[in-house]
Amino acid sequence: MKRRDEFGLIRLLTGGQQTPDTLASRLVVGNGDDAAVMSGRTGYDWIACCDTMVEHVHFARRTMRPFDIGHKALAANISDIAAMGGIPLFYLVSLGLPASFEEAEIVEIYEGMSRLAATYHMALVGGDTVAIPGDGPLTITVTVLGEVETGRSLTRAAAKPGDRIFVTGPVGSSGAGLHALLACGIDELPERWQTIAEAHRLPMPQVTAGRVLGESGARIALNDVSDGLASEAWEIAEASRATLVLTEDTIPIADDVVAYAAATGLHAQEWTLYGGEDYQLIGCAPPDEQERLTRAFQDAGLSLHWIGYVTEGLEQVRIRRASGEEALLAKKGYNHFQ
Amino acid sequence: MKRRDEFGLIRLLTGGQQTPDTLASRLVVGNGDDAAVMSGRTGYDWIACCDTMVEHVHFARRTMRPFDIGHKALAANISDIAAMGGIPLFYLVSLGLPASFEEAEIVEIYEGMSRLAATYHMALVGGDTVAIPGDGPLTITVTVLGEVETGRSLTRAAAKPGDRIFVTGPVGSSGAGLHALLACGIDELPERWQTIAEAHRLPMPQVTAGRVLGESGARIALNDVSDGLASEAWEIAEASRATLVLTEDTIPIADDVVAYAAATGLHAQEWTLYGGEDYQLIGCAPPDEQERLTRAFQDAGLSLHWIGYVTEGLEQVRIRRASGEEALLAKKGYNHFQ
Repeated sequence: MKRRDEFGLIRLLTGGQQTPDTLASRLVVGNGDDAAVMSGRTGYDWIACCDTMVEHVHFARRTMRPFDIGHKALAANISDIAAMGGIPLFYLVSLGLPASFEEAEIVEIYEGMSRLAATYHMALVGGDTVAIPGDGPLTITVTVLGEVETGRSLTRAAAKPGDRIFVTGPVGSSGAGLHALLACGIDELPERWQTIAEAHRLPMPQVTAGRVLGESGARIALNDVSDGLASEAWEIAEASRATLVLTEDTIPIADDVVAYAAATGLHAQEWTLYGGEDYQLIGCAPPDEQERLTRAFQDAGLSLHWIGYVTEGLEQVRIRRASGEEALLAKKGYNHFQ
Repeated sequence: MKRRDEFGLIRLLTGGQQTPDTLASRLVVGNGDDAAVMSGRTGYDWIACCDTMVEHVHFARRTMRPFDIGHKALAANISDIAAMGGIPLFYLVSLGLPASFEEAEIVEIYEGMSRLAATYHMALVGGDTVAIPGDGPLTITVTVLGEVETGRSLTRAAAKPGDRIFVTGPVGSSGAGLHALLACGIDELPERWQTIAEAHRLPMPQVTAGRVLGESGARIALNDVSDGLASEAWEIAEASRATLVLTEDTIPIADDVVAYAAATGLHAQEWTLYGGEDYQLIGCAPPDEQERLTRAFQDAGLSLHWIGYVTEGLEQVRIRRASGEEALLAKKGYNHFQ
């Protein structure tokens, strides 16, 4: 391990991070003291979430570059803020570093984060760097703090029978990309699978979409697709105590995923329904809001896809095939302990 | 590994956690959705900090019970809030679990946290549980959110020449306790070293002391003793661009530490100056505030010890022996990478 000592390394990693002008006046005490101090805004609530990524569980050298690891660890948390209809603002990073990671790679991890943070005008305000002994896995925990207008946060519990289900973009790309990366390795991946691999390595959270939904003032249930469409639909069904019916042929899927399925002889459905980490948003809204929301998304240069409806009944998720046949959708998703 | 699946385990661990009445109205969306939503208070800023503890680095089965691990991971973060003069409110926990930890032990870890959280009327609002593959170390990352009156946060940068240095209680107990635990093991530890072992296993952060200091309105520089008195004094010296002089014979030390040093033939100074994790607060205040602060601490049932003074000059920490001799204090502290 060719590395500076802990304090030197933290200074190196955090010193170059810029606080965007939009946040400078709200960051009372920045990174480097015992804790960060930030001022709130009247009329807004705070949002907080925290997620960990572990080497060999969520990523490996075969599937992700250090830059991607940083990007994705932050993206997953920004996505949770987006799924509340919120604005991401500040983040804290705790990195557990095994000796197998070189200083240059650690710098890359931070670069992956700070590039994405710059896109959303976010500021790094704290965290921790600790050694992981032996060849223990690299672990990265990110906490994101954001804000949302008081009374406007979008939970999973707001769906009602009669609602229409939407998703903000194609799903399955990240799952197919992971399959390709595991099969070929990041260094040997054919050019034509780079797009799906990027969907896995560098997913973009749907912050603008979440804001359009939140600002619409409509009654909306919302969740981000981190564990797969089926699993997230189940979470809405359970929180809202209703049945969600997905109409199979309306679920958006990227051409590259169809092509990858054809080339490998596999079923794309495994990725569209059960592949996680697309970070699109899935939600439910009243039918009389459908047109207005679709137009608001168009005005924002975004797409909105209507993929089903909510009915009364058991807390469950069903899929309706093109044939008219209906089946219960398995509750399975990305579950680390199975 | 005899364990429920991830979702079942998280439900088990977080389901029993109570939100104290004092926070119920401020917790808009609690644990279980994509993110937590909390309302702020007019006149207050938010404080955030995040710290990771790693098995074999910060603790081992020889030195800590699972309950202690949970307690200490939360205590370290509450201490950072205390060191800003703040009130701890909410916390998020991310647990990386190797197969070597049984479900009953994981429940104990959460119990260690929730007992301490109850003491400070805090609420668990989110987090993550992930598997650590192989025998990789247990990792626990805690984020604490708190609040402090706007303009009242206490940083390390406020010390000025002429100030007096204080500490809120004896230091070195945790370091001596760790020495005893490593020497004897937690199961074989003689009764007479239980007090110092407890100082290491179950340290109490100085929230009330931090609040008394913050509410005094005095100009105060403040830091918590997590890496040792010398290291924390150096942080104040560097942030405030001044020299801190500690007068050796005024540094409070518990009788048990003196007894342990005598019994082992070791120098207590290694623990009082360089032993971390006592979680007392060290700070600087103007001399004309000394009497008022001492009285405010007495009124709160707390002690305040004056242990030195601040002078102009290089950013450094010196120690003044009883003989009148002065020496530079090594900047060393607890540094994971050395």
